[in-house]
Amino acid sequence: MSYRKSRAGSEQTAKKGAPQKAIPLTSLHEKDLLTLETLSVSEIELILRTAESMKEVLSRPVPRVPALLDKTVVLLFYEPSTRTRASFELAAKALSANVSSLQVAASSFKKGESLKDAARTLEAIGADAIVIRHDAAGAPELVAKSVKGSVINAGDGRHAHPTQGLLDLLTVRERKGDIRGQKIAIVGDIAHSRVARSNIWGFSKLGAEVIVVAPKPYIPMGIESMPVRVSHNLDEILPEVDVLYLLRIQLERGAGDWLPSIEEYVRFYGITTERMGRAKKGVIVMHPGPINRGVEIESAVADGPYTVILDQVQNGVAVRMATLYLLLGGEKNATLELN
Amino acid sequence: MSYRKSRAGSEQTAKKGAPQKAIPLTSLHEKDLLTLETLSVSEIELILRTAESMKEVLSRPVPRVPALLDKTVVLLFYEPSTRTRASFELAAKALSANVSSLQVAASSFKKGESLKDAARTLEAIGADAIVIRHDAAGAPELVAKSVKGSVINAGDGRHAHPTQGLLDLLTVRERKGDIRGQKIAIVGDIAHSRVARSNIWGFSKLGAEVIVVAPKPYIPMGIESMPVRVSHNLDEILPEVDVLYLLRIQLERGAGDWLPSIEEYVRFYGITTERMGRAKKGVIVMHPGPINRGVEIESAVADGPYTVILDQVQNGVAVRMATLYLLLGGEKNATLELN
Amino acid sequence: MSYRKSRAGSEQTAKKGAPQKAIPLTSLHEKDLLTLETLSVSEIELILRTAESMKEVLSRPVPRVPALLDKTVVLLFYEPSTRTRASFELAAKALSANVSSLQVAASSFKKGESLKDAARTLEAIGADAIVIRHDAAGAPELVAKSVKGSVINAGDGRHAHPTQGLLDLLTVRERKGDIRGQKIAIVGDIAHSRVARSNIWGFSKLGAEVIVVAPKPYIPMGIESMPVRVSHNLDEILPEVDVLYLLRIQLERGAGDWLPSIEEYVRFYGITTERMGRAKKGVIVMHPGPINRGVEIESAVADGPYTVILDQVQNGVAVRMATLYLLLGGEKNATLELN
Repeated sequence: MSYRKSRAGSEQTAKKGAPQKAIPLTSLHEKDLLTLETLSVSEIELILRTAESMKEVLSRPVPRVPALLDKTVVLLFYEPSTRTRASFELAAKALSANVSSLQVAASSFKKGESLKDAARTLEAIGADAIVIRHDAAGAPELVAKSVKGSVINAGDGRHAHPTQGLLDLLTVRERKGDIRGQKIAIVGDIAHSRVARSNIWGFSKLGAEVIVVAPKPYIPMGIESMPVRVSHNLDEILPEVDVLYLLRIQLERGAGDWLPSIEEYVRFYGITTERMGRAKKGVIVMHPGPINRGVEIESAVADGPYTVILDQVQNGVAVRMATLYLLLGGEKNATLELN
Repeated sequence: MSYRKSRAGSEQTAKKGAPQKAIPLTSLHEKDLLTLETLSVSEIELILRTAESMKEVLSRPVPRVPALLDKTVVLLFYEPSTRTRASFELAAKALSANVSSLQVAASSFKKGESLKDAARTLEAIGADAIVIRHDAAGAPELVAKSVKGSVINAGDGRHAHPTQGLLDLLTVRERKGDIRGQKIAIVGDIAHSRVARSNIWGFSKLGAEVIVVAPKPYIPMGIESMPVRVSHNLDEILPEVDVLYLLRIQLERGAGDWLPSIEEYVRFYGITTERMGRAKKGVIVMHPGPINRGVEIESAVADGPYTVILDQVQNGVAVRMATLYLLLGGEKNATLELN
Repeated sequence: MSYRKSRAGSEQTAKKGAPQKAIPLTSLHEKDLLTLETLSVSEIELILRTAESMKEVLSRPVPRVPALLDKTVVLLFYEPSTRTRASFELAAKALSANVSSLQVAASSFKKGESLKDAARTLEAIGADAIVIRHDAAGAPELVAKSVKGSVINAGDGRHAHPTQGLLDLLTVRERKGDIRGQKIAIVGDIAHSRVARSNIWGFSKLGAEVIVVAPKPYIPMGIESMPVRVSHNLDEILPEVDVLYLLRIQLERGAGDWLPSIEEYVRFYGITTERMGRAKKGVIVMHPGPINRGVEIESAVADGPYTVILDQVQNGVAVRMATLYLLLGGEKNATLELN
């Protein structure tokens, strides 16, 4: 840890020494990945760069490297999840880690075990990293303070979902060459979305301009303190945005209750073929999935040439591999060669 | 794919050229296994032959081969299952594939993600094959059309359960030497059974005579279009059948509602020691499991010398290995030697 | 099996021949681990000795050995569990076994499959060992009688939880040097606790003195037949005990209903900092977890220097490795060297 900290220090110094090219980071400053808000630009760049190496690994005939052969990763999911859990599981396996997946049912909650004790128990069992999803914002941070090992936030309440933010950054960079200068509209229920929060931090840190676009009930209080512009008129900003990032209207969580009607939302904010016709040339449509066809996105658009949703999913595995690798594997980059 | 198709073509030609011995198939025609109804006899023979090699693998000191070391298999189960899921999981692991098992809970349904999108997501995450069980007939076919990778139907509604059909074929062939000419009675709720449908196709394609035996409410409409004889009198046909294939009376799905009483079913169709005394010499009793002791089968018969239920289970692993191997491993038969 | 039995016999003979040093056991007498009650002292010693080797394995850079590369372990859990299941899973993986984890939901119960048939099915699928947790006492024994392979009881009703007993023995031995002569107080709901039963047998067999400490409703009928002393006054025995073993007050199972009030239990039996001040010097505090902070143990005590709860958890993996290894790996001790 002290070694890592000194590195972090030297990076900061390098920054002050201005125009000279900084030596690229080779490790993260913290033992955990909890939010993009507190990551430095260099750290984000390091993860994206490492994720690109992981994509190369995934394209090999045997898409597996022995980088984390000696590590155990426990997935601790307090919310039901198949997509994110499977993505982390396959990422860990592609690095040859030992993976154990714990889906904690409501019934186990009743046992009242404190999260802190649960995490310490998993560490004592052998977990080198805990990937946690929890419906309470801050749960991963609490866990991170309780254990010596690494903790990765796989989504906590409305707070953060950093690996989602990272995979979105990777996808935009691949499609647009550079993130700097892109105009990115995040459309939907910003207030209840951890994906929105992570993307606001990620995109703005890397130099994009972020506009949140939603009816008023979907804009969170305190939005002024975030590096975004607010719009309630999609059609107005549509011609100028390079990336349309759609959030899922969480019908199952009664999201519709916040609005006069879903129909009205669809009319003003749904991405239709007609609307795409008025968008900027080269625009891409992103979505964290799962999509509601016919609500935030018309089915024809979802299956059309603008959408990069499956790229996002694919990049998710690479970004999670990169995160696990950087947090657990340190600087032994050689292990990527071995296979 | 084009290569496979040309092989399929040449097989067809060989058939027309009549009595000359056809060159055995070495690959399946389709990328998926959805139903036995559309498989050719040669394809079924190929799977059974491959399953026999797999049984040899399973009998080795280390029952594992590196055939699918580079492949990822995702089990996507929308119905609770432990037996079939464990069988597929161990089959995939015996071939060294990377396996991820997703049991989709009712809660996830509410998210309303379309099956098509879910499957594409899994493919983007890295799934080379998706093994799917779903309570809606046709769901696996829909998935198969949505992805480039292979889809294996592990049971869809009342429609089909092809690997069950295949393991039953393997079991009869092992026990009887040949399937051709066997008289096979399928006894129970034919109307609601995907196992019955798959077995009717499998057994009849390989030259057995199939008789479905059940009270009228258990005989499906349209049975005339299937290659079977119908009987409502088990005792009448009992002395002539070589295989008694019992279906599970799905008490938990209210199967009893269709009948005057379970007692009456047991009286006329339950396989008792007394009834076995009147059966043909050498008859075998099969059941897809789990059995209802005291309902479709008397406990003493279940534990007796006629039943081959555990052979069926054991053959299930071999048949699933064969299916995964043929769909994913192609013709690299050498990999079976490596271990 | 006959070989093992002859060994067992020779050990017994050696015992009769009195003071001469017995040749250490190298294998267990039975194919299963169901309860500590019927294990011999030599068998318990063998498991603890093997667990110590496993701890050495777990401390290696790559904490894995190929000892059970050829074996399949199925975890069959009829009660929800994350801790014990994860511990067994990681233990089996550390020995390179193939592991399949089946959490049987209530919905599957309705299928009414007999436990015996389920176990035979798993064996036919390829399970070399079945680790079972069930809410009915005796379920693991029933399963053990139904299969040829090994069965490990991971907790059955109020009956037994032998690997918990073993990990507790290992922990006390590590901390105290020897178990013989230790005075061990088991505090809490003895009547409903399988952990208490396993620990009473384990500790007393190895020469410790066991005192069960609880209000009357928590003392089971028939306690006289067990090798324990009963006390209803914790404060009275506190100054003389070397080990305070706290049981979980199962609030979620309405454990409070048996008592006038939880507050009263806490007042007389809760382990507080004040109470620890009156305990014997060098006392250790144990708990099978998960702990109820503020009920059976004050939070400050749980996090204090007396408690060895995380040692217990860590030893759990080693003890489970030892059990699997001895039951499945036989005497091929060489495999621990290979990695």
